[in-house]
Amino acid sequence: MDRIYLDNAATTRIAPEVLEAMMPFLTANYGNPSSIHSDGRQSKAGVVTARKKISSLFNCTPGEIIFTSGGTEADNMAISCAIRDLGVEHIITSKAEHKAVLETSLFWGVKRNVKVSFLDLDPEGRINYDQLNELLSSGKKTLVSLMHGNNEIATLHDLTRIGNLCHDHGAYFHTDTVQTMAHYAFDFKALPVDFATCSAHKFHGPKGNGFLYINKDIHISPRLIGGGQERNLRAGTENVAGIVGLSKALEIGYADLEAHQSHIWSLKKRMRDSLLKTIPGIGFNGDYEETGLYTVLNVALPESEVADMFLFSLDIQGVSASGGSACSSGSDKGSHVLEAIGISPEKTCVRFSFGRYNTIEEIDRTVEIVKTVLSL
Amino acid sequence: MDRIYLDNAATTRIAPEVLEAMMPFLTANYGNPSSIHSDGRQSKAGVVTARKKISSLFNCTPGEIIFTSGGTEADNMAISCAIRDLGVEHIITSKAEHKAVLETSLFWGVKRNVKVSFLDLDPEGRINYDQLNELLSSGKKTLVSLMHGNNEIATLHDLTRIGNLCHDHGAYFHTDTVQTMAHYAFDFKALPVDFATCSAHKFHGPKGNGFLYINKDIHISPRLIGGGQERNLRAGTENVAGIVGLSKALEIGYADLEAHQSHIWSLKKRMRDSLLKTIPGIGFNGDYEETGLYTVLNVALPESEVADMFLFSLDIQGVSASGGSACSSGSDKGSHVLEAIGISPEKTCVRFSFGRYNTIEEIDRTVEIVKTVLSL
Repeated sequence: MDRIYLDNAATTRIAPEVLEAMMPFLTANYGNPSSIHSDGRQSKAGVVTARKKISSLFNCTPGEIIFTSGGTEADNMAISCAIRDLGVEHIITSKAEHKAVLETSLFWGVKRNVKVSFLDLDPEGRINYDQLNELLSSGKKTLVSLMHGNNEIATLHDLTRIGNLCHDHGAYFHTDTVQTMAHYAFDFKALPVDFATCSAHKFHGPKGNGFLYINKDIHISPRLIGGGQERNLRAGTENVAGIVGLSKALEIGYADLEAHQSHIWSLKKRMRDSLLKTIPGIGFNGDYEETGLYTVLNVALPESEVADMFLFSLDIQGVSASGGSACSSGSDKGSHVLEAIGISPEKTCVRFSFGRYNTIEEIDRTVEIVKTVLSL
Repeated sequence: MDRIYLDNAATTRIAPEVLEAMMPFLTANYGNPSSIHSDGRQSKAGVVTARKKISSLFNCTPGEIIFTSGGTEADNMAISCAIRDLGVEHIITSKAEHKAVLETSLFWGVKRNVKVSFLDLDPEGRINYDQLNELLSSGKKTLVSLMHGNNEIATLHDLTRIGNLCHDHGAYFHTDTVQTMAHYAFDFKALPVDFATCSAHKFHGPKGNGFLYINKDIHISPRLIGGGQERNLRAGTENVAGIVGLSKALEIGYADLEAHQSHIWSLKKRMRDSLLKTIPGIGFNGDYEETGLYTVLNVALPESEVADMFLFSLDIQGVSASGGSACSSGSDKGSHVLEAIGISPEKTCVRFSFGRYNTIEEIDRTVEIVKTVLSL
């Protein structure tokens, strides 16, 4: 029986159409986009076309898209350059952010004496706007970094409301949109966002590719120095195939966004409702309603002797999912996100995350497997 | 007639065997190496195996190989982290270095008040060891950054001699080996090198991939922060397919190094000798003897009315090469490397760079085309 992959928030399968679009740039069209001969110009055209496509999908200008090696580089770039080039001396974030934001903020907090403030979170991971307003009144030049959709607990932040509050106070706003690009529409002309982070491999694009959206009114220096690429904002020979793949993956994601959303939400809902019906004592963390990120469901298992081995058993039974508090992906420490919303590290939690290739049948089969694993 | 690609120092065609090795990781094996389930472990195995392979080729430990998004990131990482984490307050380099070294040094020179010293170069691009010795005696904590093989003028630096001099003075030594990895053998246990830079797309690997070799006695913090990847030295989901491709490309390069070297040197020699015989007034820059980097030949054209349009005409005739002083790849400014060795910007220079897929027939055809273009 085929394995069931329910870890789409960690990474996704490259879409066949994406690989197909990449192939010419992995074979015959191998020129360096900076070369002026025809081999170079072919590659350059690949990059230019991809950038235009992406900017049209997000209603921004091509110059506002800076390709990077992924979401982590984009997060690091936004935060580090805001401190280094924009005079930011105060970062407001939350303890439920991705570590690329959290640890980068803390690192520069120590190295460059930047104040780092953490917003309180309610049990569903929502911020307190009064507190944000108060922290924004510190008088220091401030960057707010809050992700759009939380990768573990599915809570969505209101980018418009946060961004407006930031701009009212003269603060910059960075949002990690790694979990929501290709899943929600973004209109960067309308959104009060200064920096937004994209990672291609979260939506059926290739690993090692992403971009940082930088609003055209923001002027920073490059963090990778030494070449004129990306309008002097990010040096290094472009990963042409990857950029073309990133663009194609976004195109597919946005081709019929409503159908995409309703398909994946139906999977999350089915899983939630079936688990609730089947497993006594089961619970959910974060936002498991229609208001939440529809790709992620965080499940709190009932107390059970086998809970510790739950993910391992799922894997044996052919289901890929990732840990909540028992172990976050790849680390044997508890989840800092669940800790941030007050979930006891004793609790065994599992994140199921869904993608366009998952089916209702897979969900039903997974619920049966969960039942078996918990010996019910 | 097929085009002739003589710009292998800019980038190279991905080897078919490399793409074949990458394909499983662009299709079925798409897990995140940080995930603990079997999809993740498969990817992790790809990364681990690649790292082991690479470290065995270079006689170092796997932990000394830190995968990056390419040569520029590796250069930036070495220089920036040496300043930030190792207390370096003096950089010694030369004006013939790649801009990823040159501009990064100058940037931090201004931002962090680091002294940047430039070694004098002789007309062939060689450094003066007495001057290096003197500069190393400044009493400041120093990083020397000198490339192994020059990408424009083919001059090779003696890594052992430079590294020993550095270590005698307690200085760190970084070398950009982007043009020489997969073309020369490296034994990092024996070489007195602290940091070395690799870029996969220079030797038939994929763009967007490289590594920084960091000697195990050097302890720096990550520059990309926010994940435990690369033993906490470089956060971000690994570009698994790219890493596997990088490893395979090195494996091919080193499979029969002597045959590889002698084939490519025969191309350079043939081109040099044929041009000399055929084109009156032609000359060469840098090291065009067997002592130089055998993949690069820098040609100084005779004065001619068509010299300005030379590269353009070559391109029309189906030959991809890149500019020397007329225009360096992708920029319409003169070459900073040729300027560094005292070549007048009035002189039209062309860089031909050779790879394993070039043939003697292509060289002969190119010489004929050069003759035609110069209307001889």
